[in-house]
Amino acid sequence: MDENKKISIAVIKRLPRYFRYLSDLLKEGIERVSSKDLSERMGITASQIRQDLNNFGGFGQQGYGYNVKSLNVEIGKILGLNHGFKAIIIGAGNMGHALANYPNFEGRGFEIVGIFDVDPDLIDTKTNGIDILSMEMLDGFVKNNKVDVAILTLPYQFTREIAEKVVALGIKALWNFSPMDLKLPGDVVIENVHLSDSLMVLGFRLGKLKS
Amino acid sequence: MDENKKISIAVIKRLPRYFRYLSDLLKEGIERVSSKDLSERMGITASQIRQDLNNFGGFGQQGYGYNVKSLNVEIGKILGLNHGFKAIIIGAGNMGHALANYPNFEGRGFEIVGIFDVDPDLIDTKTNGIDILSMEMLDGFVKNNKVDVAILTLPYQFTREIAEKVVALGIKALWNFSPMDLKLPGDVVIENVHLSDSLMVLGFRLGKLKS
Repeated sequence: MDENKKISIAVIKRLPRYFRYLSDLLKEGIERVSSKDLSERMGITASQIRQDLNNFGGFGQQGYGYNVKSLNVEIGKILGLNHGFKAIIIGAGNMGHALANYPNFEGRGFEIVGIFDVDPDLIDTKTNGIDILSMEMLDGFVKNNKVDVAILTLPYQFTREIAEKVVALGIKALWNFSPMDLKLPGDVVIENVHLSDSLMVLGFRLGKLKS
Repeated sequence: MDENKKISIAVIKRLPRYFRYLSDLLKEGIERVSSKDLSERMGITASQIRQDLNNFGGFGQQGYGYNVKSLNVEIGKILGLNHGFKAIIIGAGNMGHALANYPNFEGRGFEIVGIFDVDPDLIDTKTNGIDILSMEMLDGFVKNNKVDVAILTLPYQFTREIAEKVVALGIKALWNFSPMDLKLPGDVVIENVHLSDSLMVLGFRLGKLKS
């Protein structure tokens, strides 16, 4: 792959889907797949698939299709699933606990190394073997542990302040669960997860179906 | 609004964002907003905003902009936030618990009326005042309670089977948290939430930033 080539965000957002579908094919014992078959499973056009994968150097062979395992491995490498990024969770409420116990982090290239909260009942307990620490420990912890990612599962009103704080501490990536499109200046990567938006779309579509 | 007009899924997916930004403007005490200001906040073009809102009959006035409160109320109505849909959660693990305690359901037109699991340690307990019931109670409960939505926070391997089961019981909407694009035949509305996809995109972008 050409390291200097700028890949569009739309292509990047489809990569995890490719990875997921290829992983499923592997589980089903399927060794090769045509762009046509993959396109039917994924609900995107075969030409889109060829175009997407050409961004990373192709992988397909005319008349053979794609080797599922090697394409899966290659997309995993492109996604950086072997990065071993260190992440902390800030906010040990229900969502913080759910994420601390989420089984997919390691397979996706992340390790949760600490959880932070202000609640004295939670501080110095553990969940999934991970220490829950006082917010007062945050600065020192981040400095000593080379933390790459902060996962923010905080009340809405504290999210921006804490986001700015962790970025000032040198953290370069935020996974934000507050219902806001968090934006910050500088070289910071932010993914906002909007559960409530997805729920509203579900409600809208259900309302239409029933009307 | 023209009830027969087919609204594109891209527009529908932007509606919750409009609702969210307008709610934030209201909190800030801002009474009216131009499409230009809104466009800068939301990071989409002013012409896109006008075009989106024209799908629902406009709302804006030349030279005045949008009245924040009435636009917020109207979009809330379009989204059906007053529907009062009844939802159940299937799977009372960490994510099920997190969602049962998620404070935004009511404001988004949903009420959680029951949670189901197979774990005897969880059955007959409560979370956030909601009963956790045995999966054996599911059929009778759905029949007696006019359930609209099933929220699936199940292990991957059980998701398809349980999804088919609840649809057979008459549930018309699924909010799926398993890492698969659940598709089912017939008139069923499905929203898939892919936390792991979002995490992989974060990892990819962070990898690029660091390289």
